[in-house]
Amino acid sequence: MTYLAKVYVTLKKSILDPQGRTVERSLHQQGYAEVRDVRVGKYIELTLEGERAEVEARVREISENILSNPVMESVRFEIEALQPA
Amino acid sequence: MTYLAKVYVTLKKSILDPQGRTVERSLHQQGYAEVRDVRVGKYIELTLEGERAEVEARVREISENILSNPVMESVRFEIEALQPA
Repeated sequence: MTYLAKVYVTLKKSILDPQGRTVERSLHQQGYAEVRDVRVGKYIELTLEGERAEVEARVREISENILSNPVMESVRFEIEALQPA
Repeated sequence: MTYLAKVYVTLKKSILDPQGRTVERSLHQQGYAEVRDVRVGKYIELTLEGERAEVEARVREISENILSNPVMESVRFEIEALQPA
């Protein structure tokens, strides 16, 4: 079975997010004063073959060990089966 | 009401994703040969106050006009109500 994994990597809440601050200031300057707490992170999509449990374990490994830095970042992922083309 | 908006910005499928290719090669070198079609994008969270319909319209505007480049990028977003702290 083919699966699409969606991985979301964000800075931990305790860590200052300069990129988020910059975007927030820019939004305020462009008239979106009601926006706050802007956080900017990475969104990664990847496709894998295999059984669901095996794919889930592999994506967890990839997400936690390669795609994110556990010291500064939080990571979560979703997996969805892809219909054969 | 307070809403959390989650915005996902990815390169359009027709556009080469060098960052995705680099991540894919690195995953293959580290033993994850079954991974393919790696795409790297931006994930942005922002908090807004207001009525749902109004917030949705504002987030659509922000997503399409400020947080993404319509020529090269696709954008989608989700909105969820935040429970008062």
